[in-house]
Amino acid sequence: MEPKIANESYPLLNKINSPADLRKLPLEQLPEVCKEIRQFIIANLSHNPGHFASSMGAVDLIVALHYVYDTPTDHLVWDVGHQAYAHKILTGRRDEFASQRTLGGISGFPTPLESEYDTFIAGHAGNSISAALGMAIADRATPGHESRKTVAIIGDASISGGLAFEGLNNASNHPNNLLIVLNDNDMSIDSNVGALHHYLSQLTTSAGYNRIRNRMAGYFKKKGLLTENRKRAMTRFSNSLKSLISKKQNIFEGLNIRYFGPFDGHDVVKLVKTLREIKDMEGPHLLHLCTIKGKGYEKAEENPTVWHAPGKFDPETGERFCGGSDGNPPMWQEVFGETLVELAKKDPDVMGITAAMPTGTSMALLLHEMPDRAFDVGISEGHAVTFAGGLAAGGKKPFVAIYSSFLQRAYDNIIHDVAIQGLPVTFCIDRAGLVGEDGVTHHGLLDLVYLRCIPSMSIASPADEATLRGLMTTAVNFGSPLAIRYPRGRATTPDWQTPLKPIEVGKGRQIESSPDARVAILTLGPILSEARKAVQTLKSKGVGIDLYDMIWLKPLDEKLLKEIASKYKGIITVEDAAESGGFGSAVTEWMVDNKVDIPVVRLGVPDKWIGHGSVAQLRSLCGFDSNGIEKAVENLLAKLH
Amino acid sequence: MEPKIANESYPLLNKINSPADLRKLPLEQLPEVCKEIRQFIIANLSHNPGHFASSMGAVDLIVALHYVYDTPTDHLVWDVGHQAYAHKILTGRRDEFASQRTLGGISGFPTPLESEYDTFIAGHAGNSISAALGMAIADRATPGHESRKTVAIIGDASISGGLAFEGLNNASNHPNNLLIVLNDNDMSIDSNVGALHHYLSQLTTSAGYNRIRNRMAGYFKKKGLLTENRKRAMTRFSNSLKSLISKKQNIFEGLNIRYFGPFDGHDVVKLVKTLREIKDMEGPHLLHLCTIKGKGYEKAEENPTVWHAPGKFDPETGERFCGGSDGNPPMWQEVFGETLVELAKKDPDVMGITAAMPTGTSMALLLHEMPDRAFDVGISEGHAVTFAGGLAAGGKKPFVAIYSSFLQRAYDNIIHDVAIQGLPVTFCIDRAGLVGEDGVTHHGLLDLVYLRCIPSMSIASPADEATLRGLMTTAVNFGSPLAIRYPRGRATTPDWQTPLKPIEVGKGRQIESSPDARVAILTLGPILSEARKAVQTLKSKGVGIDLYDMIWLKPLDEKLLKEIASKYKGIITVEDAAESGGFGSAVTEWMVDNKVDIPVVRLGVPDKWIGHGSVAQLRSLCGFDSNGIEKAVENLLAKLH
Repeated sequence: MEPKIANESYPLLNKINSPADLRKLPLEQLPEVCKEIRQFIIANLSHNPGHFASSMGAVDLIVALHYVYDTPTDHLVWDVGHQAYAHKILTGRRDEFASQRTLGGISGFPTPLESEYDTFIAGHAGNSISAALGMAIADRATPGHESRKTVAIIGDASISGGLAFEGLNNASNHPNNLLIVLNDNDMSIDSNVGALHHYLSQLTTSAGYNRIRNRMAGYFKKKGLLTENRKRAMTRFSNSLKSLISKKQNIFEGLNIRYFGPFDGHDVVKLVKTLREIKDMEGPHLLHLCTIKGKGYEKAEENPTVWHAPGKFDPETGERFCGGSDGNPPMWQEVFGETLVELAKKDPDVMGITAAMPTGTSMALLLHEMPDRAFDVGISEGHAVTFAGGLAAGGKKPFVAIYSSFLQRAYDNIIHDVAIQGLPVTFCIDRAGLVGEDGVTHHGLLDLVYLRCIPSMSIASPADEATLRGLMTTAVNFGSPLAIRYPRGRATTPDWQTPLKPIEVGKGRQIESSPDARVAILTLGPILSEARKAVQTLKSKGVGIDLYDMIWLKPLDEKLLKEIASKYKGIITVEDAAESGGFGSAVTEWMVDNKVDIPVVRLGVPDKWIGHGSVAQLRSLCGFDSNGIEKAVENLLAKLH
Repeated sequence: MEPKIANESYPLLNKINSPADLRKLPLEQLPEVCKEIRQFIIANLSHNPGHFASSMGAVDLIVALHYVYDTPTDHLVWDVGHQAYAHKILTGRRDEFASQRTLGGISGFPTPLESEYDTFIAGHAGNSISAALGMAIADRATPGHESRKTVAIIGDASISGGLAFEGLNNASNHPNNLLIVLNDNDMSIDSNVGALHHYLSQLTTSAGYNRIRNRMAGYFKKKGLLTENRKRAMTRFSNSLKSLISKKQNIFEGLNIRYFGPFDGHDVVKLVKTLREIKDMEGPHLLHLCTIKGKGYEKAEENPTVWHAPGKFDPETGERFCGGSDGNPPMWQEVFGETLVELAKKDPDVMGITAAMPTGTSMALLLHEMPDRAFDVGISEGHAVTFAGGLAAGGKKPFVAIYSSFLQRAYDNIIHDVAIQGLPVTFCIDRAGLVGEDGVTHHGLLDLVYLRCIPSMSIASPADEATLRGLMTTAVNFGSPLAIRYPRGRATTPDWQTPLKPIEVGKGRQIESSPDARVAILTLGPILSEARKAVQTLKSKGVGIDLYDMIWLKPLDEKLLKEIASKYKGIITVEDAAESGGFGSAVTEWMVDNKVDIPVVRLGVPDKWIGHGSVAQLRSLCGFDSNGIEKAVENLLAKLH
């Protein structure tokens, strides 16, 4: 642990142990509170990495909200809550903040399990309006709660998703006093996309919407809130300018939601005044704030994508401590991104799609090389998959790269818009398995289960770079839906740029062989490396264990399973996924269906929610790191005697 | 089969074996073609039930589209394609139309497996814009296809869903010529809800949007297109009128989509002219048409909800042949709907939510009795679940009733917005299992699998009304997420109004017992009745088989399983669901985990797509009707010798 930052740096913050303390301060001290919070975030995140730029941008808004609203009686509902660090700091978690995202420490996202101030979970984008609407309507229907207020705070990227739209569309159906704060920083993790984004840009920059907007316009220009992105958006479409001039009414009011803004989201004193003005308003209303991602830290303001989650850095110089990648294996994402570009160069029908994760998935590489054949559709996982289905129906070979836990949002699209028709869409499922510090909302543990039950879906997972490249090559001419899952983090081999060669469908391979092996370990995906370690350790103890990398979950390599069934006295399956319903279950089902009565031990993530911590810690907790596998083998061997 | 309708009734239609034939006719004959198609639909659907009202409303639009566009080179993409009967009739399926929705006959929905004119699957609402966009962009990128046109046809209910919004939001991101036809009949299956719906009503009725709209306004009033619903919508919100007056720009143009309309969707000649005018337009554009559900059949125009899928009827008198329910068991839906009202009367925190299925699920009963405590959120399954999560976070006890196959659209909402937080939301999963005539897109076969892997989720399925009522009573104070699944159709007992009594969690029951039974059948849900028949038949053959109704999939009744494991030589599991990953797998896993080595045979729906037909036919095909179960028992017994 790095030395703690001296308490004397935070004369005001030191006295704020709950929002009630904040509300005791005079209004004019709030800018100083914001400054201290920013210093605190910089000091902490520089040695305990986290989501930096969006948190810095939301400080003033958070201070104003807790100052005006009677939290926790009134409800603040966050959307993708990694922006809400200031909220955690103000609500009694200042001292625990250094433990953020570590095993046993506080979460990087708001969670009701941690604090009564965290009213709803906030890991996946776009849920805040619907959830807050539920709370607001529940309060109306609960004696004594009628006067409670509910505020949803949502970013301009999140609001472009279908779920947020459904929330907006339903907001006026029943009486409620919901306030939606639109925190518009002109981007998600990467640059924002979609027509709504342009629309917001126009709202932001258009003169004439209302008196306040007129007054603010010049101010925004001065403050630099008219970014290059916004300027480009203004001119991109021929009808934008026309509608810019003629616009008298806006999308939100079209949905029966009163609209206020845009205002400067960094003027905390004015924010407090504005919130006080609209606080008691009946009916759903929306407050549009312009903020700057990274606000208060120059380097982050200049390059918010890099500073979204910058890792450790020197708070004085802004130098980031990335750790050289020389000699290390590449990230799985790099292998995916570069391989996709290679495949796209060979086959004009290969296309790429992602949903607001171009940098995270490395789809950025294809977007850069072939902008006509790569699509970032914004936080719209459902659309991403159905759109890919349309491309495939049009004869193309789309590769959709989405994080495993976010792909849950496109489940029906996978089933209905791709698999029923047998369309050749390849799902490159990133961040599969335990993801570590992002925790419970971000682990990608269910994909094997929820995909295996879909007819016509094939599923594979590579244990090394060459296999990932092979599977992607196979995918190009596969002709039906194929899911390829791989985790976050580094792969296995520094020299990974092997020739592209399709690999055989439904064929596993033996990795370790020992003449006296009584037990075989079967793995799926990169967890092979942990099993390999376990086998080595056992070998050094004189115990020979065989090891198979099955590669394919569906179709299963039945020929290989038959061999295995006849050869060993027991089987252990290992997967970095939910232990019931996926790989281990498929092997178990096969054994029972084929009347093989040798014991099968399934290792994987047990049927409970797993929090945050390092991947190594969490694997150990779940019992499928090399130690856990070793123990499982020893237990099984003991029972075989 | 009823007598075929005389061919001489359709002098024009008889000559149209493909859209090319239609395009040979002079424009002025199109109204007559529409009339013949309507007669044809009436004649056919009166004895072979199907989706009537929406099909009648879309006839003119469909004729105009095939007349103007060069199908199948140009693509028509349907959204919830049960409106597209006229399209089937015009595209070479007139003679097969009578086989619609029956085993081996044509599907009730468009499907690419059936015809090259059906470009994309269209069973779940809101996918057409995303899919069509994919096709339009694929054509742009395919040499020789650049000039092909793509048209998405979407209803006003479908367009209110999040997926459609994501499609709209992305429509202008890349060059394309997509036409979106908004078929606005002012309702989904039930009355339409949501702010967008009001907005469309305003667009429909507002003067001043553009020249064409001005010209049309008086015409609409004359034609009766200004329905009561629309009039009410206009005044429901105080700011509607204001925005009505000031509106100069519309939501679609805010999303960079050129807007045309609203036009009369029943004037086929004008429709052709309008389509010709906008056909070669660059960039995404939307044509807003007002249509009347049931158009051309008075009874259906008057009561489109009843005539959505009216069953058999007398074409002359409009008398519907519903079949009396006297003495029959109730529909599962009825039991759900009435029980929910009873529970809501006892507990003020009980609330109900559905997503555009109030009649289908019988949530209509609570909506009628307690409009403040029941919510129909429109075609927004994701919002429905997250909203329920918000209500639960606010202390309420929401019951969400959604069809199984549509609940797939809320998968991440179930995981992220309910289950991670352990919120007490009860999912009443309707239309679970094989649904029969609606076919592949509507079967609810995956729910057991995709829910079982979610930690903190409990899952049960009643075999009779009393158990459904018991489970719902248990749910009221359950305190964590609970899924209760039941099928379409009739339950088991005419006298079902038993006292409300919670049933024990995780406890199954023995149904049949025989002193010499060597095999036990374990069932989950109403499929018990098929197993019971099999047991009776086997008994009459002198073979004693025991039978258990497990009721709970999660938690499993491990005590009972232990008893079963020690008592029998073999087990057969039966579920009306995918046979891998669900109930049978859970039992199999338990047996293997507990080192029980007796054979387990899993019966359920195999890993392939199942089409349409009667439920009885499909169960037989899948091998889990009473005959299939009987055979499975006999096979197993033979192997035990």
